Amino acid sequence: MPQRDDAAIEVTGFAWVPPFARGHVRDLRVRWALEEIGLDYRTRLISAVERPTSYFGEQPYGQVPYYKEGDVEIFESGAIVLHIAEKDERLLPRDPVGRVRAQTWLISALNSMEPYIMNMVTIDGFCADQEWALLRRPAQVEMMERRLQHLSVALGDKDWLEGRFTVGDLMMVEALRNLSADRLSIPQNLQDYVARGEARPAFQAALAAQLADFVPDEEGVPA
Amino acid sequence: MPQRDDAAIEVTGFAWVPPFARGHVRDLRVRWALEEIGLDYRTRLISAVERPTSYFGEQPYGQVPYYKEGDVEIFESGAIVLHIAEKDERLLPRDPVGRVRAQTWLISALNSMEPYIMNMVTIDGFCADQEWALLRRPAQVEMMERRLQHLSVALGDKDWLEGRFTVGDLMMVEALRNLSADRLSIPQNLQDYVARGEARPAFQAALAAQLADFVPDEEGVPA
Repeated sequence: MPQRDDAAIEVTGFAWVPPFARGHVRDLRVRWALEEIGLDYRTRLISAVERPTSYFGEQPYGQVPYYKEGDVEIFESGAIVLHIAEKDERLLPRDPVGRVRAQTWLISALNSMEPYIMNMVTIDGFCADQEWALLRRPAQVEMMERRLQHLSVALGDKDWLEGRFTVGDLMMVEALRNLSADRLSIPQNLQDYVARGEARPAFQAALAAQLADFVPDEEGVPA
Repeated sequence: MPQRDDAAIEVTGFAWVPPFARGHVRDLRVRWALEEIGLDYRTRLISAVERPTSYFGEQPYGQVPYYKEGDVEIFESGAIVLHIAEKDERLLPRDPVGRVRAQTWLISALNSMEPYIMNMVTIDGFCADQEWALLRRPAQVEMMERRLQHLSVALGDKDWLEGRFTVGDLMMVEALRNLSADRLSIPQNLQDYVARGEARPAFQAALAAQLADFVPDEEGVPA
């Protein structure tokens, strides 16, 4: 496992989050990318409850992850993963056409799928009991399911969106896994696709590493 | 103006959209990037009313823009703009640190700002009279204004997010200009920042080119 105290790469994570959020904090996608290409990193843990004021100077919105590697400082999980991918053709193909397709899927996950997914998580999770969420849900589900249908057609019977695994799949799987097939209709090939991504040893190692970094429950909620 | 019938780069746009959407369709950001570095392009216009089935084979969600340049085919406005930026250091600095910062702001616009902006546009535009939108609005405004405050601090008194204009500013300005200071509180330095972006000759040329491509109203709504 490439988590090491003297690693050149530093990634921030949260010291503690409620149980439902564990395994879903966004440093996971960065850890996953690093694990895929075997790059060492160290973590710096931030309080999610009281975010240190100074941290906003690094991450403008006070979120995690923040990434530091010498002079290079990056504060968006998508940009961090793209930067890591540039280092290794296992994540980002070297040929110009393959490269641009992988980048396209990465950005598609961030800008065409994740905004809808975030709205579903808000409606079914954070605001599930609120009147507005009940009223809005049918239209939001319809839009989400239409998007999923389009993506399902694009994937077809391939294992990965462009045939071979790329950083585009990493980001798409990491976005899609926040949806639950209990609450809306997810095409079977997309469910299989997410399971295929989550079965990768690098994903499993990243997930275990995020979970291991949280303060144990018996120590209580840190300030 | 670099729009030319025999250009090597093809970008799709919509043949017609309702007046409120004109100047806000996403091929604008691609045209803007091309204008900034003086690259010729041609447009292919798609019906927004009845999207041709075959088009979904190019753009999985049936949206515009779609970009073609020889073998290179890209379907996300963010990925297209990033690809164009790679061609010229006026959009993407060549030094590794500057490059990654510009990419970070581009992705920040797409993934940390635009999802909130899209929700504001939904609430104040498309769904303004709906019960759920009225109920949800205060919380959505609060989240949006908090984000804008954080961004305002990051910009400070600089002209552009990293001092000099980059593709990160292009994308951030293009996202922010969909908000209206009539409906929520936008920090003055961000209002000036958007005005500064919109005043650039390349933005003005891109906007004029998008508007000129729509079928004239007197010809009616195309099928």
